[in-house]
Amino acid sequence: MQFSSALLENAVNEFAKLPGIGKKTALRLVLHLLKQNTMEVEQFSETIAKMRSEIKFCQRCFNVADGDICSICANSMRKSELICVVENIRDVIAIESTQQFNGIYHVLGGVISPLDGIGPDQLNIESLIHRVGKEKTEELIFALNPTIQGDTTIYYIQKKLEPTSLRITTIARGIAFGGELEYADEMTLGRSLQNRLPVDRYVS
Amino acid sequence: MQFSSALLENAVNEFAKLPGIGKKTALRLVLHLLKQNTMEVEQFSETIAKMRSEIKFCQRCFNVADGDICSICANSMRKSELICVVENIRDVIAIESTQQFNGIYHVLGGVISPLDGIGPDQLNIESLIHRVGKEKTEELIFALNPTIQGDTTIYYIQKKLEPTSLRITTIARGIAFGGELEYADEMTLGRSLQNRLPVDRYVS
Repeated sequence: MQFSSALLENAVNEFAKLPGIGKKTALRLVLHLLKQNTMEVEQFSETIAKMRSEIKFCQRCFNVADGDICSICANSMRKSELICVVENIRDVIAIESTQQFNGIYHVLGGVISPLDGIGPDQLNIESLIHRVGKEKTEELIFALNPTIQGDTTIYYIQKKLEPTSLRITTIARGIAFGGELEYADEMTLGRSLQNRLPVDRYVS
Repeated sequence: MQFSSALLENAVNEFAKLPGIGKKTALRLVLHLLKQNTMEVEQFSETIAKMRSEIKFCQRCFNVADGDICSICANSMRKSELICVVENIRDVIAIESTQQFNGIYHVLGGVISPLDGIGPDQLNIESLIHRVGKEKTEELIFALNPTIQGDTTIYYIQKKLEPTSLRITTIARGIAFGGELEYADEMTLGRSLQNRLPVDRYVS
């Protein structure tokens, strides 16, 4: 692409560094910003820079936080004895959006994946073990993606916590609402038969 | 979507204002920036803000420019007697990318569209007429989109320039390279028959 302005070209190149944004999309975004007034574009740019420089990670659960502790951990209405273990911040947002969980979180920052060179030491696992020992945790709910890496991580943490009397659970695997049986993979369908529920629990 | 950080939420909302970017994509982009180091994100944010505040429009052709005159108009190697009339900056970039045009441009800023309330006075038409009278222009090439609005704009400008001996042309309409005849619309196919070319001109 041939630009006749270095300012324009630099801005397009910056946008094109973002994931899933090619040169053409970047140009469309930049030309859109060019049509906005200067104040609005400054607000855009400042908000992004401020987010990166001021955002912190919760010292307790490693979720994003505006201060030392995130708003979920700081909320006294939430059940602090119930910890949901997730891979990343996106999963926290997904679970929060269901409004079905009233406990707190622990963000691992990934899952154990030897092929990618990610071992337990690179993740927030030690702090989870420490936290569970210190806080009055009653139950750990694993909400990890159903992959080999996710299962390995659950297994590893479970082994570490075996001496304790902690209740360890994982979110239900099964046929998604709106999903069709004939397109479900054999593993999911098989497991959903094994872990079948009484109809009264399903309905409520 | 439920965020546990106002900084994160504000950044997501800013990205989601961009065209074609929904909340989920915005979140993906923001989380990507969160993983970059602060300096890189500052560079992103500064480049965008600088682009908006410092970019100018060429006083001669209304293309984007880093100074008073754009780099195309300032280039003495280009044939200034050949002016290509386009709708917007994106069209300049598209034509420049072909590397087939060695003249200069005139960016109208839109096309005449009474339904959208855009008349000749909202466009850079007066300046084109003025420019053609002042500069030693020999040919005006219209490269507008083949719509009723584009054709109306060509007709309007052509009428205004009728008293002059200027050569006025428009880019060829026809079947696109790689296009298939059976899927071409009747108008395009019909016109491409009327405006057929001798094979020797087609090949060269």
